[in-house]
Amino acid sequence: MPLRMSSLFVRTLKEDPVDAEVKSHRLLHRAGYIRRSAPGIYTWLPLGLAVLRRIEAIVREEIEAAGSQEVHFPALLPADPYEESGRWEAFGEGLFRLRDRKEADYLLAPTHEEVFTLLVKDMYSSYKDLPLSLFQIQTKYRDEARPRAGLLRGREFIMKDAYSFDIDDAGLDASYETMREAYVRVFTRLGLPYVMVEATPGAMGGSGTHEFLYPSEVGEDTYVRTAGGYAANVEAVTTVVPEAVDASAVPAAHVEDTPETPTIATLVDAANAQQPRSDRPWTAADTLKNVVCAVIHPDGTREVVVIGLPGDREVDLGRAAGTGMLGDGEVDLEPATEADLAAHPGLVRGYIGPGLSLEAPVLGADSATGLRYLLDPRVVDGTRWITGANEQGRHVFDLVAGRDFAGDGFIEAAQVRPGDPAPDGSGELELARGVEIGQIFKLGRRYAQKLGLSVLDENGKSQVVTMGSYGIGVTRAMACVAEEYADDKGLLWPINLAPAEVHIVATGKHQDVFDAAEALAAELEAAGHTVLLDDRPKTSPGVKFGDAELLGVPNIVVVGRGLADGLIELRDRRAGTAEELPVGEAAAAASARVREQYAALAAPQG
Amino acid sequence: MPLRMSSLFVRTLKEDPVDAEVKSHRLLHRAGYIRRSAPGIYTWLPLGLAVLRRIEAIVREEIEAAGSQEVHFPALLPADPYEESGRWEAFGEGLFRLRDRKEADYLLAPTHEEVFTLLVKDMYSSYKDLPLSLFQIQTKYRDEARPRAGLLRGREFIMKDAYSFDIDDAGLDASYETMREAYVRVFTRLGLPYVMVEATPGAMGGSGTHEFLYPSEVGEDTYVRTAGGYAANVEAVTTVVPEAVDASAVPAAHVEDTPETPTIATLVDAANAQQPRSDRPWTAADTLKNVVCAVIHPDGTREVVVIGLPGDREVDLGRAAGTGMLGDGEVDLEPATEADLAAHPGLVRGYIGPGLSLEAPVLGADSATGLRYLLDPRVVDGTRWITGANEQGRHVFDLVAGRDFAGDGFIEAAQVRPGDPAPDGSGELELARGVEIGQIFKLGRRYAQKLGLSVLDENGKSQVVTMGSYGIGVTRAMACVAEEYADDKGLLWPINLAPAEVHIVATGKHQDVFDAAEALAAELEAAGHTVLLDDRPKTSPGVKFGDAELLGVPNIVVVGRGLADGLIELRDRRAGTAEELPVGEAAAAASARVREQYAALAAPQG
Repeated sequence: MPLRMSSLFVRTLKEDPVDAEVKSHRLLHRAGYIRRSAPGIYTWLPLGLAVLRRIEAIVREEIEAAGSQEVHFPALLPADPYEESGRWEAFGEGLFRLRDRKEADYLLAPTHEEVFTLLVKDMYSSYKDLPLSLFQIQTKYRDEARPRAGLLRGREFIMKDAYSFDIDDAGLDASYETMREAYVRVFTRLGLPYVMVEATPGAMGGSGTHEFLYPSEVGEDTYVRTAGGYAANVEAVTTVVPEAVDASAVPAAHVEDTPETPTIATLVDAANAQQPRSDRPWTAADTLKNVVCAVIHPDGTREVVVIGLPGDREVDLGRAAGTGMLGDGEVDLEPATEADLAAHPGLVRGYIGPGLSLEAPVLGADSATGLRYLLDPRVVDGTRWITGANEQGRHVFDLVAGRDFAGDGFIEAAQVRPGDPAPDGSGELELARGVEIGQIFKLGRRYAQKLGLSVLDENGKSQVVTMGSYGIGVTRAMACVAEEYADDKGLLWPINLAPAEVHIVATGKHQDVFDAAEALAAELEAAGHTVLLDDRPKTSPGVKFGDAELLGVPNIVVVGRGLADGLIELRDRRAGTAEELPVGEAAAAASARVREQYAALAAPQG
Repeated sequence: MPLRMSSLFVRTLKEDPVDAEVKSHRLLHRAGYIRRSAPGIYTWLPLGLAVLRRIEAIVREEIEAAGSQEVHFPALLPADPYEESGRWEAFGEGLFRLRDRKEADYLLAPTHEEVFTLLVKDMYSSYKDLPLSLFQIQTKYRDEARPRAGLLRGREFIMKDAYSFDIDDAGLDASYETMREAYVRVFTRLGLPYVMVEATPGAMGGSGTHEFLYPSEVGEDTYVRTAGGYAANVEAVTTVVPEAVDASAVPAAHVEDTPETPTIATLVDAANAQQPRSDRPWTAADTLKNVVCAVIHPDGTREVVVIGLPGDREVDLGRAAGTGMLGDGEVDLEPATEADLAAHPGLVRGYIGPGLSLEAPVLGADSATGLRYLLDPRVVDGTRWITGANEQGRHVFDLVAGRDFAGDGFIEAAQVRPGDPAPDGSGELELARGVEIGQIFKLGRRYAQKLGLSVLDENGKSQVVTMGSYGIGVTRAMACVAEEYADDKGLLWPINLAPAEVHIVATGKHQDVFDAAEALAAELEAAGHTVLLDDRPKTSPGVKFGDAELLGVPNIVVVGRGLADGLIELRDRRAGTAEELPVGEAAAAASARVREQYAALAAPQG
């Protein structure tokens, strides 16, 4: 039976949703695929569910083909395993927590590492049982601070999460590679362009991880790439650290009056006027900017820290927070508030510096202020800086790292810039934005260790299992497909994801037209195709065509005025082309076109 | 590819789970179909998931065939719609509630009437859009006080819930009947015996409802039936109310000393000795027993009430709580505690009565105690009772209902007994137990009214929509199938629900055996069958046979010792029979048997 527009539970809308920021959200809403139930929480209407199920089927097929077995965990889980792993705290406010009637703690799982680990521990005990790969396609929950862009960042969403279990590192490497290849097949079949980038493990821990990003301006992730093939999440880019500099010729640090230097630029001008360098002029990169920030730890603790970096760079709060260098778990990093500054009167706003000598530090855990002082990796020993002298209107010159000051450690906090060198030497970085649609992790032994998953090896010796974790955002991938395949008229589904293969539009008032449309639908269905039939008796042709374009079925057959001349029109939604065909040939032609579209998908991609 | 026991994520267990109360729970656990994650919360292992998916597919097919369209709602919902409907309170402790990071109230939905109502309100506005039927197969949450029996009463479970929307009562009747017929087809295809019983709407409200019960001793629901075809949940049985009695000849009430009458039996003996009736001896049915109970209202309020009923009957707390006569929403009813009694010193334990005259009531909202007094419907006007005189060691005789005392109302609180007359006159009731696997409700206009779902009728007049709600416990139905189809060796799946159609067991150490088993598996899969292959190289035949019996695939093919003579054994798991076949005929024979088993299912049932 075809889907019939006369009874299908769908209403197309002219208005965008009020909170719509991106095309996929606007179109999925207006075309009646999804409806918002709460911020970041959506209801799936019949057409949306049809597309979602097709995407799930592709994911399932490829992950099973990679040797993974499907299971299904609860979304509602007891807190204990997450307390053991430390993530009950580490997830911070992003975790939906609740209590049952007996006051026991539960959570709505954002991801399932802990319970997969425990399940395997419960079932398996020997190296002979490994390698093992398990997966589920399941509803996940994250209490996002800023749910946005429809399905792109939801609070209830569907993920495919898979986990591998191996006896040794070589096994994990092989499992990781197998899953990486499966991901390539999944995204290829979904028609989604992707970039695989190096990433940082973040709160998940582990030894290596890559993200699959759908390159798009609507993405929240910034990544970098080089013509030479390097690609990484900005959080994972490591600064090319200059070699230490010989500073023996640098004079002793000296404090100078620098009135009217409220900005880096005015400071540089003043420095060149008052204290010119013999070798070259001072630049912003010679100034050491000390930025006061506040780290919000997972337990809610607020810690004021100072980040020192060259004056020509800005702090990238997200990158710095993602490095894992600020503390355990998922931390937030914010600019310091007035209150933060007021609480530390040792900080002279506009003139903050590390102090004039190693003996009398102003910044650092052991200093007068007691504030952690983290440095950009470019601040290597021997580098020579102009920086605040901790006195109003004064700066210190010729302050040398290692000789006159030191930090509590380094942090990758500076914004990555186009033109920065790639860490692998493959050239200059360029920046791009993308949506994370998949991530693969080498978790290593972290979870197995904490939760006690060991098996006996060939020699009867207990070995901690090493694990991988592999996620695909299924609902998010659907949003990306909608983002990629759309034009200003509406959605434009690839044939293998469309809610129907052919959309038949019957126009006009003649019963003949409706009879012919019904016959054509029956013929196409008999040939194994899925059909959406617009059989609404009183709707105008214009509305019907508009709806067809908005809904995005790739092939549109118009049964209308031409029928009197024995003609039917076959439209290609994506190409925007149309051809008239004798009514007797229409089914065969539409069927052939559908087959061609599938064949084109299966063909090797350009 | 066959499922292979050598790599399949399954471990059979010899031990029952510690909390196992019923066969299905024991077997699904021991056979490695499910694992408990928390009380009433289960993880699905590959074999369990395979069966569950087959059950879901049958449910989906039949509900779609009934004209319902599939959608999918979130499990995590904002509280507002449930506050508007009153169920945020009415669900009481059974609702999982939580707050997001902005302190907004959410719930894990136990059922979705409110949001379906709002969705239709959002999308539709005309009578032309109706009738409409929508459904979902979705994870539901109820914080059961006593999760039990594995999947039979879970806290996270899968339900198919459908909702119908009609413009008038006739439409609702038709939608209800369509869904009833679909349910019959679903349960027939699942091979589940069922009884359709009248039930009470309870907290759901509405005008009519039936439950589908799987008759089983493990069920928590007691229902009644007659040889004449009546069937009802005990909560829905209505007492055949005797006609009012002419009490003009009954003497005035009189209080008597009745020492040493601690029980109804001793009271009856004393009455017959001291105050014999002229017409017949007193029996327990002539005594009026007044039972003190506590109603726990949804808001947590505890209300002490007194229920008066004939002394030969016990109070059925569940039935009384289910009648809806004790208050709005889902109430609990408990025996009164010492504290309850202590709080009402007017109650003389063992001698509680309504008082000696209508002018000086002891029980009732307007009485000295102020406690609501609810009467069994058999206490009709003119009936003559012996009951407590509210004095230690004394009873009142010839107390006549209507003349000397009255209640605040009637309640169906007495236990239904075998032999009681059916309300429809179809004979004497017999009692049986069952598991609720489905329920269909005529909700009527309650939700549409509260949430404002109206459409314009043919005359342009706004009409409140009338709704039905239809549930099937999908995971619970699976437990019932496991309950129904099992023997002392293990599970016994019907062919259309089994995780595989044929289980091939390769025994012994000869490579020939494994090669032949592989070839047979390949042949059966080529013929379109699903195969589970026990290819474990070092497992003993006994263990393999035991596992095959426990797992419950209906057809077992043994490739073992006989292979040297060119023979293979084909076992029928349910019949317990086996036949030897030439190896060349085995695949065809197994295939034929599978086809016969499907054909037998499709045949009209006995």
